[in-house]
Amino acid sequence: MTEQLLLQQIQEIQPLDQESMNQASAHLDQLTKPQGSLGKLESLAIQLAGITGTQAPLLERRSVIVMAADHGIASEGVSAYPAEVTPQMLLNMLHGGAAVNVLARQASAHVVCVDIGVNADIEHPRLHSRSIRKGTANMAEGPAMSRDEAVRAIRTGMEIAADEVRRGTSLFVTGELGIGNTTASAALISALTGLPPARVVGRGTGLDDAGVHRKTEAIRRSLERNRCDATDPVGVLAAVGGLEIGGLAGVILGAALHQCPVMLDGFISAAAALLAVRLAPACAAYMIASHQSDEKGHAAVLEQLGLQPMLQLDMRLGEGTGGVLALHLVDAANRIMREMATFASAGVAGASGEVPQ
Amino acid sequence: MTEQLLLQQIQEIQPLDQESMNQASAHLDQLTKPQGSLGKLESLAIQLAGITGTQAPLLERRSVIVMAADHGIASEGVSAYPAEVTPQMLLNMLHGGAAVNVLARQASAHVVCVDIGVNADIEHPRLHSRSIRKGTANMAEGPAMSRDEAVRAIRTGMEIAADEVRRGTSLFVTGELGIGNTTASAALISALTGLPPARVVGRGTGLDDAGVHRKTEAIRRSLERNRCDATDPVGVLAAVGGLEIGGLAGVILGAALHQCPVMLDGFISAAAALLAVRLAPACAAYMIASHQSDEKGHAAVLEQLGLQPMLQLDMRLGEGTGGVLALHLVDAANRIMREMATFASAGVAGASGEVPQ
Repeated sequence: MTEQLLLQQIQEIQPLDQESMNQASAHLDQLTKPQGSLGKLESLAIQLAGITGTQAPLLERRSVIVMAADHGIASEGVSAYPAEVTPQMLLNMLHGGAAVNVLARQASAHVVCVDIGVNADIEHPRLHSRSIRKGTANMAEGPAMSRDEAVRAIRTGMEIAADEVRRGTSLFVTGELGIGNTTASAALISALTGLPPARVVGRGTGLDDAGVHRKTEAIRRSLERNRCDATDPVGVLAAVGGLEIGGLAGVILGAALHQCPVMLDGFISAAAALLAVRLAPACAAYMIASHQSDEKGHAAVLEQLGLQPMLQLDMRLGEGTGGVLALHLVDAANRIMREMATFASAGVAGASGEVPQ
Repeated sequence: MTEQLLLQQIQEIQPLDQESMNQASAHLDQLTKPQGSLGKLESLAIQLAGITGTQAPLLERRSVIVMAADHGIASEGVSAYPAEVTPQMLLNMLHGGAAVNVLARQASAHVVCVDIGVNADIEHPRLHSRSIRKGTANMAEGPAMSRDEAVRAIRTGMEIAADEVRRGTSLFVTGELGIGNTTASAALISALTGLPPARVVGRGTGLDDAGVHRKTEAIRRSLERNRCDATDPVGVLAAVGGLEIGGLAGVILGAALHQCPVMLDGFISAAAALLAVRLAPACAAYMIASHQSDEKGHAAVLEQLGLQPMLQLDMRLGEGTGGVLALHLVDAANRIMREMATFASAGVAGASGEVPQ
């Protein structure tokens, strides 16, 4: 698929079904509670109806797509962990021992691990081997990847999403793994929004102050070296992005094309979401923000996306952990729609003092 | 039980088990994730170990204690709903149609409905009929209840908690029902903390600006009329409290006495928690804050209690709905403790670059 065909395809993302949303909203107002008193659970129920065209959709098969890749910028000392941790953690995840596996089991979600650019040879029967290159180049010295590789990363994510839809997946969670990827995310966000690097750089896996300074400087040099054009999202991804960020943007676009809700995890997922929205603004309506992470720039990106997170857990682990934790709230919203009594059925008076007939 | 005996008994609440907490903390630091990166899930796992003396306790039977009562102050037009809604909603809850029933089923929690002072005659096989009086008196005209009734409300909550512990409950959620109870809660919080009424009065079930003004004035008159002494929590409860607020304070104290964690719901639960802490400061260590509600004064009380909520859903429904939604996070914390791989078992390098042996 050429870049042009890809951009053409994602313009086919549909707006939400307004009639289903109106119906969901009217049903919520008949339930035995003050109107609007379930807050974000109510807006979530309405959004899910709009996305799927169904009241209280079952969303039985939910898949966490964990895109793993390495980053040339890691050689600049921007992470508290060595780059070998990317393949080591990917194996841990394939064996079911990572945090996302534990929380996905709790949420009855599948974990789909994708090697989209890890700098190691990994084989495992459950691994989706879709490597585009063995990690990005050091963006402080030149573009992280070629424009063609950036397009392929996005396309790979779209293909993975389409494959999962064929297997019955009706809800996606974005997850990732990659030492150095908060640095790439911060650079990409800075390039796309114009926010200064210092506003969006955080401690990642646990940098000290000197580390944060080093990271900020590395991003500054990368942005100077590459001179990105914010109106060219694919160019920005090629210059300062990561293969897993492009892949996740593709998953988000693919989910939206197939009218599936997509639960965003933390900072890296938000960077991918921003990239996806710049490519096809219609996909924003399919996004749900799970949690507000402890990573400094996350709040700023969510604001740009117009999303309000539901969990406030000070997490900064990635992998999709915050996303799977929030699946519970999707189920809660749908159960409310299906199981609560109405004022009329329960014989309860509304704010008017009358019991509706 | 006299007031003196009650006050004596609750001084026996034990501090948390520091050794279990140290062990839990050490275990969390060996798991394959950056230290502390699971944020509040980690502090919750440590707290649960300290409360129960067990690493990753199962907490299989969890009970939502819903205390229902009426309020004389409702006659001042402080609620968007008529007072008849208290018994109507209690019946709805006994039939399983209220929001808390739906969310409790999702969380495998029992809903225990207690009539501690509803202004109606309700009979139902599942109702715990422990009525102390048929609603409080109008606190704008005098004390809401007698000192003896206030003591009995607290004692009733402690007895209910003890009964549930005998039935196998190992975790409590606080819930309530009572038209007018955000008004009583705001008055009680104002009396105990010295915060001006305007700081802690919110829209309750959905008041407009004129209603909020009326409510604030009703609280001001109640506080003037009763002249509470903040150093006498039982006296404050008698003057401007509610029977369900006293009952919930008793549930919290009883849970702590039996070394059970207690998940707090929203604004009214926070008022009960504040009362409990003023009676026995040691009970604070047993509390978990579930959500930040949309009710204006909630954040201020949580700050007083030194608690940080985990969910940010803009809810304002009560019943225990936020509390049961957060049980999922208790389970997540315990699963993390039980199921995640360690750096050594997974062969993953730590921040030092070495794989621990």
